[in-house]
Amino acid sequence: MGIFPRKVKGFRDIDSRLNSVRWLIIQKASEVYRRYGFEHWDSPVLEYAELLGKYLPDADDVADGIYSFRNPELEPQFDERGNELRDEQNNVVMTNHFLTMRYDLTAPLARMYSEMVWQRFIHNQLKEGRAPLFRRYQFGPVFRFEAKLDPGRFREFWQLDFDTVGSDDVAVDAENVMVLSDALENIGISRGKYVVRMNNRKLVKGYLRAVGVESEELEQAILRIVDKADKIGMQGVAEELGKGREDKASGAFISGLGLDNRLIDRIMQFFYSFENTPGRAEVLNKLANLNIGNELLDQGLEELRRIDEILSGLNYRDDRAILDPTMIRGMGYYTGPIFEVEYQGTYKDEKGRKRRVGSISGGGRYDGLVERILGLRVPATGASIGVDRLAEVLINQGLVPEYSGPVLIVVFDPGMMIEYQRLALKLRNAGIDTEIYYGNRRGLKQQLSYADQKNSPLALLLGEDELRQNVITVRDLRLGKELADKITDKQQWKEQVQQQVPLDQVVEYVKNKLQK
Amino acid sequence: MGIFPRKVKGFRDIDSRLNSVRWLIIQKASEVYRRYGFEHWDSPVLEYAELLGKYLPDADDVADGIYSFRNPELEPQFDERGNELRDEQNNVVMTNHFLTMRYDLTAPLARMYSEMVWQRFIHNQLKEGRAPLFRRYQFGPVFRFEAKLDPGRFREFWQLDFDTVGSDDVAVDAENVMVLSDALENIGISRGKYVVRMNNRKLVKGYLRAVGVESEELEQAILRIVDKADKIGMQGVAEELGKGREDKASGAFISGLGLDNRLIDRIMQFFYSFENTPGRAEVLNKLANLNIGNELLDQGLEELRRIDEILSGLNYRDDRAILDPTMIRGMGYYTGPIFEVEYQGTYKDEKGRKRRVGSISGGGRYDGLVERILGLRVPATGASIGVDRLAEVLINQGLVPEYSGPVLIVVFDPGMMIEYQRLALKLRNAGIDTEIYYGNRRGLKQQLSYADQKNSPLALLLGEDELRQNVITVRDLRLGKELADKITDKQQWKEQVQQQVPLDQVVEYVKNKLQK
Repeated sequence: MGIFPRKVKGFRDIDSRLNSVRWLIIQKASEVYRRYGFEHWDSPVLEYAELLGKYLPDADDVADGIYSFRNPELEPQFDERGNELRDEQNNVVMTNHFLTMRYDLTAPLARMYSEMVWQRFIHNQLKEGRAPLFRRYQFGPVFRFEAKLDPGRFREFWQLDFDTVGSDDVAVDAENVMVLSDALENIGISRGKYVVRMNNRKLVKGYLRAVGVESEELEQAILRIVDKADKIGMQGVAEELGKGREDKASGAFISGLGLDNRLIDRIMQFFYSFENTPGRAEVLNKLANLNIGNELLDQGLEELRRIDEILSGLNYRDDRAILDPTMIRGMGYYTGPIFEVEYQGTYKDEKGRKRRVGSISGGGRYDGLVERILGLRVPATGASIGVDRLAEVLINQGLVPEYSGPVLIVVFDPGMMIEYQRLALKLRNAGIDTEIYYGNRRGLKQQLSYADQKNSPLALLLGEDELRQNVITVRDLRLGKELADKITDKQQWKEQVQQQVPLDQVVEYVKNKLQK
Repeated sequence: MGIFPRKVKGFRDIDSRLNSVRWLIIQKASEVYRRYGFEHWDSPVLEYAELLGKYLPDADDVADGIYSFRNPELEPQFDERGNELRDEQNNVVMTNHFLTMRYDLTAPLARMYSEMVWQRFIHNQLKEGRAPLFRRYQFGPVFRFEAKLDPGRFREFWQLDFDTVGSDDVAVDAENVMVLSDALENIGISRGKYVVRMNNRKLVKGYLRAVGVESEELEQAILRIVDKADKIGMQGVAEELGKGREDKASGAFISGLGLDNRLIDRIMQFFYSFENTPGRAEVLNKLANLNIGNELLDQGLEELRRIDEILSGLNYRDDRAILDPTMIRGMGYYTGPIFEVEYQGTYKDEKGRKRRVGSISGGGRYDGLVERILGLRVPATGASIGVDRLAEVLINQGLVPEYSGPVLIVVFDPGMMIEYQRLALKLRNAGIDTEIYYGNRRGLKQQLSYADQKNSPLALLLGEDELRQNVITVRDLRLGKELADKITDKQQWKEQVQQQVPLDQVVEYVKNKLQK
């Protein structure tokens, strides 16, 4: 009798230790976001699939990459102006719309912003065509159905975004870098252990146009290959731009774009010249000296100069943010300045291999995302911290404060419950997290093993004899663990880790113990 | 061109003001939960439908009340021991399992707990049949597809639960009452404005058995009717227990259970005798004097006595928690002590009618929920705060601190951006939330209307002239709003709400202004 109990594959429960790290990140970063004037908004987990875009399923089937299903509610179909569609008999066309569990927080923001502007249009509150300014931060779970899941990856994970919609000013892009930098330092990552890499899509695009890449499609294809430089190396990039290459790991042949060698050389020239990224000033100089006279590239350079000017003016120097013209970022929707934060450290994976931690956050300017919905050009820029990814980094880099559970009051005698309760009340009133042991398995061993599981710092032992003498025994569980190997004599160990305290001094005693 | 932008029907965006109330509740209540030793755990939004129970859909269709769909992943079917099912050819039977978006946080807790215990069984870490103790709190969105949605209700809403699994001790039920009471007071609801109503399912069940109600089904049917007493009155309850009644609002006839009059009288007698709930001591006395000699009732009474003893011993008196033997609570799964928190106040609904606020939280003991999955009896008890419901109450009762946006730095001259940035940096370093206006609509009017939207307390005005004189103008936006009606002369109004401050004193000045 029963049901085999299990989580959905690819999902996980978050225990209190991991949760404390997740919420440390959210709280410390949110504090910084608010400091810059971003306000906390929230949007639903479910959205109409057509409004999230890109992944719209065209059948009853669930599209690759997302969780999508038919709304149980039957609703009208609308045209793009919000009018109900009608059939030949003039009946409203009804359907069960596709719903999607959000796969990020940016697409819902585009919907939310579009809806707000739309409502103002309808109510004639928007007098000019210029998009209003909107700045918000948001955090929460997002959902991706990745058919093949890498170990340590999950299909539900948390993001923490901040975005500015309705501003062309690249000062915002500069500010984004400051926000991320401040947020990471507030979380506890010291300067020098992270670096923000900045670039501008316009630079690369401009360069590619100048060397003869005309079509948007070819440009995207080239960028996708260059984006893999981290994994396949510069030689691999050159091969994939040309005839293709054999993948050493799988032995499979990866076909190339078939570009001619002269073009490949010119493309690679750009990326080679910035490969070992020096200081921002030097990169800006190099870019100015390219002298290829492409308008888009010049515009991109000008924007980066302005960003550098603001950052330098506020003392955000090369130790926090660098320029890297070879950095691409995967997402196709970025249109201008982009950035990515790299954690400068290594860790050992489950097989003991040393690995670079890599990217923990990123963002950029996306001036086209809202337009898809609203039909109005609305510039936007923002960034996202991968909360669960960063939590993992903080843990494996030892940057997390020790997790501490509540003080545990051991229940020797259920008949003394009122006494235990009164003791708990006193401790709680002094601000001390305190738990009374209520389990059905009442042995002292079980109670202490429970305290151990919860990483309780102290156990309070109060029996009838002690109550009569107005004393209580306080056991230091952490010290107990520490000394367990060193002191084998049980009595001696007890003397070290236990202390009898007058009952009316226990609150002060516990407080002092915990402050150490 | 575009897509009609809209939220899924029944869902909503949460703006920063409402969000600040939601998180005030979560933070203040969580603080209390932790104070009692509950730790913060999280579970996924998606679960296998069969493990959430009750609502399991038996077709490709979505069951009433929940959002459910087929997992895009093909997986084995398992028997209740976790063995893969095989067909006649000995192939593993594969299926796309139904997934459900959680409709509460209790059912996922039962799954989570069962899975932990199951894992220990498998690894032989569980030596006795007794269930281990587990206490956690959790918050987050839950999802219900209610085909007919009342106004002001939503299909996604937040809950904030705390539960103790693995304890028979009704001291935990007493503690639950203390936790809720402390949490509500910590949130800002003063004593006397809320009351916890307590009851024990065993009382009513015992009484019904004593008067001749034998079957579980009839008992549940009777309880469901009694539960409606709030809406249909005692007379309505009596009618529905008997021949039925006509609903005055709809004119529809609601058929009754058809019990005979003598039984109805005896049932009603119980509820009438406790209708005007006096103090806990008096209720306990009355219950003791019922003298109907039913074991279940006696057990229920004994449990309530113990709960009262603990509450009274810790000074949680009738002004915080009362006994109400007529309170039922809808959920079928409660097995022992139950409670419900009522906010003692009224509000005006959208039509201006005065209404009682009613229930804002509830909970109870559910000793059978885990058994359904694990096949092992595991006692459990806990409670849930309806976060969004409570947020609504705090807002309409005026219990929410005024919402304040960031200080806004007006951008007169984009060429002075570095100056604005330096000013912002200084303010932020002093802990003041500060935003620089980046919008594309640059008129002073637009900038101030933006500040107004965000409820910014102050606007800082810095032009070239002022910079030369090393001064800055600070406008008090709140005072400005206040005086807008009173002072019609623009110059006079300006003199009242604006102040020129030396640039090197602006941080101190702003700090002082904000502290007021």
